[in-house]
Amino acid sequence: MGDAQQKKVKKVLTYPERQSQCKHEVLKRLYGIMEEKKTNLCFSGDTTSFAELLEVVEKVGPYICILKTHIDIITDFTAENIHKLKNLASKHNFLLFEDRKFADIGNTVKKQYSEGIYKISEWSDIINAHIIPGPGIIEGLKSAAGEKGLTGKRALLLIAEMSSKGNVATGEYTKACVKMAEENQDFVVGYICQSQLSKDPNFIHMTPGVKLVEGTDSLGQQYLTPKEVITKRNSDIIIVGRGIMNSDDPATTAATYQQAGYDAYLEQCS
Amino acid sequence: MGDAQQKKVKKVLTYPERQSQCKHEVLKRLYGIMEEKKTNLCFSGDTTSFAELLEVVEKVGPYICILKTHIDIITDFTAENIHKLKNLASKHNFLLFEDRKFADIGNTVKKQYSEGIYKISEWSDIINAHIIPGPGIIEGLKSAAGEKGLTGKRALLLIAEMSSKGNVATGEYTKACVKMAEENQDFVVGYICQSQLSKDPNFIHMTPGVKLVEGTDSLGQQYLTPKEVITKRNSDIIIVGRGIMNSDDPATTAATYQQAGYDAYLEQCS
Repeated sequence: MGDAQQKKVKKVLTYPERQSQCKHEVLKRLYGIMEEKKTNLCFSGDTTSFAELLEVVEKVGPYICILKTHIDIITDFTAENIHKLKNLASKHNFLLFEDRKFADIGNTVKKQYSEGIYKISEWSDIINAHIIPGPGIIEGLKSAAGEKGLTGKRALLLIAEMSSKGNVATGEYTKACVKMAEENQDFVVGYICQSQLSKDPNFIHMTPGVKLVEGTDSLGQQYLTPKEVITKRNSDIIIVGRGIMNSDDPATTAATYQQAGYDAYLEQCS
Repeated sequence: MGDAQQKKVKKVLTYPERQSQCKHEVLKRLYGIMEEKKTNLCFSGDTTSFAELLEVVEKVGPYICILKTHIDIITDFTAENIHKLKNLASKHNFLLFEDRKFADIGNTVKKQYSEGIYKISEWSDIINAHIIPGPGIIEGLKSAAGEKGLTGKRALLLIAEMSSKGNVATGEYTKACVKMAEENQDFVVGYICQSQLSKDPNFIHMTPGVKLVEGTDSLGQQYLTPKEVITKRNSDIIIVGRGIMNSDDPATTAATYQQAGYDAYLEQCS
């Protein structure tokens, strides 16, 4: 009885189980995509050319559940290109996640999210934020989505841990982040983190800095493998950027990451 | 003798003294402007209209040493308007400070600083960053300035403390920030903070959330007065946004803040 109960507690929930248990609309959509496309791969399309981004996304779209962007590094940004990106997201069935890392007071992030050239709230399903400014940052972003009539259609991830060398998102900082997430479940749906922070399916874990081979870059980025991230650290989503972007054959490479990530999930569930 | 020595230690350096003692070119320029224009006022021009920004800056320009911008909330951004802004900075002799609050890994901030629509490194004398990603963020930003041939012409402030309610930039976090600043004096010239963190004139302190009357906004911002910031907290620069922007007469209001901030400095020096 005790053993059986322990086994039950330790078992990892499948994507359909998580989908039925979580509350937020964006998370339900995401788990649905992950199940349907058999992927926990988020592609980080970091290029300064929108034309190149669209070209690569057309290739890797079938293998990903999320496309993560840094819209503010793109030199040929246009609203028309955003329209094309949204069409690709519909065609290949993935979510858009602008990795803006909002980090200002509520009154400012509200405008950064909804105004300016980018109007992020109008096209990005998911955004993220640092918690340094305190809970006002969550309120500010949430109210911006609400004012555009997008409540429930937009979700926020809190950056609880980072992958770069010497980062200070650790210990008490990470704990403060988890507390703020739990207090704002109507808008916060998970974490950018290095390992699982909660077993509650209302919070998804996304881990950046993933490559097939571990290592570092010259500016402090530290890489982990898909298996390490999903199986050992119990994260949910692998975020892969340069591993795919710099590949000669992004589609095949994305398929390799998709398989590695999904196999690790199946291993966890079994 | 002991008393005299104590008095000497406690005395605040004048702007010309700080200018002669500090090393960084941007800081030397800034202290020079502060002395010449008798101002420690940084105006935070937070509007979503570039036309309005230019109009207000034309009025408040004579009273400020720095214009702080949030370029990414402006809906009518154009390179031509940046050109006009630079001309206003030359005409009225103030520095430009894009309050981007960089907060990503080195490889990403490098592109966010130099690429994209905004090309911040090409026009903003000063930028700021959160230290959460670790020292790679400083390296990334510094290398971006270097690659554009702007070494010495661009400077970074680290966000050591914030003015918003419940913020977590405190204690060990602030100490880690000071350590990173001291280790990167060729690029880091000071802090966004709530009170003085260093007596070294190589580090300047800028304090946001300043109004003539203390109070809060609905999204957690907490206001301090110029006198409190300069005299009690020993900061160097008062950052005023809505206090001036929402005034019926921005020029007169800016002059009032200038006087309040400068009087507080004179009181400190005497």
